[in-house]
Amino acid sequence: MKAARIVKPKESLQVQELDTPKPKGFQILVKIQSSGVCHSDVHVWEGYYEGIDGQQLKTTERGVKYPLTPGHEIAGLVDSVGDQVEVISRGQKVLVYPWIGEGLCPACRIGEENLCDKPRSLGIYKDGGYAQYVLVPSYRYLVKMEDDMDTDTSAPLSCAGLTAYGAIKNANLKPNENVVIIGTGGLGLMAIQLAKAVTGAKIIAMDLDDKKLEVAKKNGADITINSKKEEPVKAIMELTDKLGADAVIDFVNASKTVETDMQFLRRRARLVLVGLFGGELKLSLVTMPTRAYRLIGSYTGTLSDLIELVSLAGRGVIKPVVSNRFKLDQATEALTMLKEGKISGRGVINP
Amino acid sequence: MKAARIVKPKESLQVQELDTPKPKGFQILVKIQSSGVCHSDVHVWEGYYEGIDGQQLKTTERGVKYPLTPGHEIAGLVDSVGDQVEVISRGQKVLVYPWIGEGLCPACRIGEENLCDKPRSLGIYKDGGYAQYVLVPSYRYLVKMEDDMDTDTSAPLSCAGLTAYGAIKNANLKPNENVVIIGTGGLGLMAIQLAKAVTGAKIIAMDLDDKKLEVAKKNGADITINSKKEEPVKAIMELTDKLGADAVIDFVNASKTVETDMQFLRRRARLVLVGLFGGELKLSLVTMPTRAYRLIGSYTGTLSDLIELVSLAGRGVIKPVVSNRFKLDQATEALTMLKEGKISGRGVINP
Amino acid sequence: MKAARIVKPKESLQVQELDTPKPKGFQILVKIQSSGVCHSDVHVWEGYYEGIDGQQLKTTERGVKYPLTPGHEIAGLVDSVGDQVEVISRGQKVLVYPWIGEGLCPACRIGEENLCDKPRSLGIYKDGGYAQYVLVPSYRYLVKMEDDMDTDTSAPLSCAGLTAYGAIKNANLKPNENVVIIGTGGLGLMAIQLAKAVTGAKIIAMDLDDKKLEVAKKNGADITINSKKEEPVKAIMELTDKLGADAVIDFVNASKTVETDMQFLRRRARLVLVGLFGGELKLSLVTMPTRAYRLIGSYTGTLSDLIELVSLAGRGVIKPVVSNRFKLDQATEALTMLKEGKISGRGVINP
Amino acid sequence: MKAARIVKPKESLQVQELDTPKPKGFQILVKIQSSGVCHSDVHVWEGYYEGIDGQQLKTTERGVKYPLTPGHEIAGLVDSVGDQVEVISRGQKVLVYPWIGEGLCPACRIGEENLCDKPRSLGIYKDGGYAQYVLVPSYRYLVKMEDDMDTDTSAPLSCAGLTAYGAIKNANLKPNENVVIIGTGGLGLMAIQLAKAVTGAKIIAMDLDDKKLEVAKKNGADITINSKKEEPVKAIMELTDKLGADAVIDFVNASKTVETDMQFLRRRARLVLVGLFGGELKLSLVTMPTRAYRLIGSYTGTLSDLIELVSLAGRGVIKPVVSNRFKLDQATEALTMLKEGKISGRGVINP
Repeated sequence: MKAARIVKPKESLQVQELDTPKPKGFQILVKIQSSGVCHSDVHVWEGYYEGIDGQQLKTTERGVKYPLTPGHEIAGLVDSVGDQVEVISRGQKVLVYPWIGEGLCPACRIGEENLCDKPRSLGIYKDGGYAQYVLVPSYRYLVKMEDDMDTDTSAPLSCAGLTAYGAIKNANLKPNENVVIIGTGGLGLMAIQLAKAVTGAKIIAMDLDDKKLEVAKKNGADITINSKKEEPVKAIMELTDKLGADAVIDFVNASKTVETDMQFLRRRARLVLVGLFGGELKLSLVTMPTRAYRLIGSYTGTLSDLIELVSLAGRGVIKPVVSNRFKLDQATEALTMLKEGKISGRGVINP
Repeated sequence: MKAARIVKPKESLQVQELDTPKPKGFQILVKIQSSGVCHSDVHVWEGYYEGIDGQQLKTTERGVKYPLTPGHEIAGLVDSVGDQVEVISRGQKVLVYPWIGEGLCPACRIGEENLCDKPRSLGIYKDGGYAQYVLVPSYRYLVKMEDDMDTDTSAPLSCAGLTAYGAIKNANLKPNENVVIIGTGGLGLMAIQLAKAVTGAKIIAMDLDDKKLEVAKKNGADITINSKKEEPVKAIMELTDKLGADAVIDFVNASKTVETDMQFLRRRARLVLVGLFGGELKLSLVTMPTRAYRLIGSYTGTLSDLIELVSLAGRGVIKPVVSNRFKLDQATEALTMLKEGKISGRGVINP
Repeated sequence: MKAARIVKPKESLQVQELDTPKPKGFQILVKIQSSGVCHSDVHVWEGYYEGIDGQQLKTTERGVKYPLTPGHEIAGLVDSVGDQVEVISRGQKVLVYPWIGEGLCPACRIGEENLCDKPRSLGIYKDGGYAQYVLVPSYRYLVKMEDDMDTDTSAPLSCAGLTAYGAIKNANLKPNENVVIIGTGGLGLMAIQLAKAVTGAKIIAMDLDDKKLEVAKKNGADITINSKKEEPVKAIMELTDKLGADAVIDFVNASKTVETDMQFLRRRARLVLVGLFGGELKLSLVTMPTRAYRLIGSYTGTLSDLIELVSLAGRGVIKPVVSNRFKLDQATEALTMLKEGKISGRGVINP
Repeated sequence: MKAARIVKPKESLQVQELDTPKPKGFQILVKIQSSGVCHSDVHVWEGYYEGIDGQQLKTTERGVKYPLTPGHEIAGLVDSVGDQVEVISRGQKVLVYPWIGEGLCPACRIGEENLCDKPRSLGIYKDGGYAQYVLVPSYRYLVKMEDDMDTDTSAPLSCAGLTAYGAIKNANLKPNENVVIIGTGGLGLMAIQLAKAVTGAKIIAMDLDDKKLEVAKKNGADITINSKKEEPVKAIMELTDKLGADAVIDFVNASKTVETDMQFLRRRARLVLVGLFGGELKLSLVTMPTRAYRLIGSYTGTLSDLIELVSLAGRGVIKPVVSNRFKLDQATEALTMLKEGKISGRGVINP
């Protein structure tokens, strides 16, 4: 089979010919139809995240090994199954849950495998979806899709959709609350759709670009703020009787955005940090108890969350959008475009 | 009636003769038997909290007005009741819930009056318990005590007990988890007792003083660490298979303690910030999502929490301790001793 | 002031001239603009509920005293306020939360006053809304309405809306679940709208009348079943891969409907019992643990729930409908029509 | 290997010589040291549960197939592992989680495999622990035990312990509440210990035998009621200011006990039904909403619950007790003694 692989960080991906795996035991081999291109792939490709004081947190120190086939948003058809698999069979259209854990840690035991102490996620720690086939360690990581569901628009549910949904759940919104969504790219739009679908809260979208904010409004934002044109703290305070935001979900999570977020939080506010942009925040410690703030790091979501998403998308309650399609040998181009901000929605590779 | 009042920040308290209030409507006049001396009284007396960059956050900017009768840990007897009060009467022994809100904000509506947008807490925004009588705005803020309960040991439940309990609840502990308690003064000891009583978790107490840690062990700590003698990060990592702490409750909440806490958190850990020591933390933003941390500011507790505490104390499940007793005219002495670290447990004023 | 009162169960209501109350302390006098006519008013008028073995549970044995001004769905304007009220003033448009408790029981302490041990609900234990004015015991029971909100359509939020919402919350629905709504009268329709707005679940509406089911579909039901034409158990089983319903909300709650419900519950199902029709169910005890069923009695909702509802209605996310309007002297006619099933939506009295 | 098997319901078990399974893929072969004898084994042996109207619910209609090796409380040593198992190895002392599901249903997805739509539980649907070895379908169903933990007292944690713990969790107790435990056999005692360890609630134990109630008191019951000597409804009402019990956990769950339970429930009470005794209850439907009762069927517990239990038992916070030990060829004798009420604590087979 063919796979587009990162052989060394920062270098162009190589399309290599690898042995097609044969599933054993509970394993499943999935023939990939669509594989989403995610911003965290860029970090894996670059080989680091940005920490405090300009320090680089290397992916190899977090357990990533190269060469690696990236790609964790995978949809396709079951090709073959291991000898112990009874409940799923060849030809089934599936979405793959990639956030696989070791199985024995407390997170795994309650279905939060995405937060496992020793993660084995596909496309990060194990070979993933920039390939013709992927080997999934157990039939349990598959989510069945109806035949009429599109794999291109569904693939991104397993990371972009899941990350947005996990963040919405962590924000713990009530219908009489407001939530500020920072960043209206792919994840932000998905979060707006999901907040609309399941929370009843008032949605305020914030970004730097009027066009994106217009799209945000069409996707369900009640109010939009262009933080280039309006002073964001003032704008939020005016909208909220000077009380501040009940919750903020920051899909950028850079020093500058979070410093601003901290200035328009209502007492008891939840600030959900999602983006991997990085940098540092100078946090006033005494303010945490007196204002009863919660800073919540939110990372992807659970298998159960993904099943909920597939149900919502299958009934058209949410509508994920794909903007760019690539072939396997265009993987480097796809990552480059994403890095440079040239993909407005979501890119998908069709291997 | 007599009251010990802060006329101006930092000056000695004055014992003044004031009109004894007459309760109307739902109001209650409580004759005070015991009034706890709390570390936050010291901040109200000093007039500020420490923010970031050495900045002082003034109490007057947070709405405190002087002269003020401090004291929010109040136990006594119902003296007289307003004309609309039907369900409680003179002579009833009561604990007063001091964390009173305005009543119309979302926090108040779900019983989280302690986190009201416009708080009216007794002893902070309204006259409190360093006095012979206190006027409580509604019978609803009273918690009935059994006649055999001691007011001296019970009074601190309404702040020291409540703050410890609120923190334990925010830590959301499971029986197979560990929790590190930073600081084993009055609040830390109460938290150890409460964690023991209602969580089943493994309790690790950390402090700088062997004597205090010995007391912590007697109060229920499973393991103690003297962070002066042992390197705390190394110690926690060794105790936890190199995984880190499931939860940390920091009753100091100073730059130095929190910086250390951040280094021994397990993935998914809750770091509950309680103390009002203040200062700043340089927080790595990308670490929040990738490690799925939660930083939770915890401030006192709800009326319902207080009722639970009174039930636990009434049955001897927890045993609050009082170490020093003062007269009303010793209020300045009490605050000075507390500020200088000369009160090992909890001080109480008997007016 | 004028009030339409039940002087004796089953007799025509009398319009009496009563002294207009004067608010003291925290009390508020509300000038009533709209007062909803609720099916539970019929029970209070008839003087009983149906128990097991054909037995009648008398309202007087549950603490109701006659003569009584019924009516617990009240919207209007603040007329005057007690001397201790600071945060709300004359002319404010308000919805009244009628499910008032004594204030000291555990339910009241966590904001579940609707489930107080010793309830004092307006229109049931205290004089209610079939009148020109109502005396509300504290400003805390008022929910502010925007000036552009209509009192006629808003009044029913405080019982019909709240009961539907409480039931939806008790059903604890997830987006990948289905819920069967039994009965598509006023409450059922409201429940369908609310399930649509905040749960993402698949909604199956069941009733005996095609016209009502058509309305249900317009209000958001995904699937409708006419249980006169289709065998309901078979219909649900076919829709659910023979697994059964994840949740059922029964707004009738009569022997016949609940016996049927029990036959199409999925393992782990929640059966939420709301209606006051009554009768008995022969429950197989061993089935409860082996199938892990939950039978949940659901009664109105909390003040916080009402605030959420007003927020949803204020933004047009839900749209309550009023079908019939009456004058105060038509109160007996309104109750009679409701009893005989001649009010299809909701009736409102404009005093 | 040897196994004691039910060849036909009601007949004596046969000790048969079977092929020892060889683990493949994720499978594990456990050499059994202790296998608990549980009351539900008696039902599987008898072939039915008691339904309503004296009807028998047959185990074969619920999917049980004979011959079957019963036994679902299994502790032992890992003997050998499948070729895909990396994280556990030969010699490890383990407890087996027997409540295994198919893996794709919503319950399985959130870690509630015990409530799977298509269960494959060991000892019920698959061969279990009355044998020298048991084949476990994945390493994920093993809970590691410290070497100093005793397998005899630990084995019953996986059903008796888990069922008690699941019931305690379903009762959702607060420290200011009371809970009535009906039945103080093995499960009841375990529930008392667990309620003591993690809830802070006041525990009232009810049974017919003074000796058992004495043991209940030693295990942590605050109050005991002999329902043969005292009228139980009157007794509970006197203890609770005529308000009733906040929660009841019924480990008998027979018509007679549940009819009594229903008479001493406080408004908002949770009645947790656990026992498999069976029979019927005539339930007043209108009472469910007006009193806001919750009837909760509780069946075993999750893998995560079991890990919590092993942690509590490992630190001596709870102390499970074994009263009778049997050899494999005494399996029929063990079941007979249990059926006849001749085992006071818990019986264990050492194969």
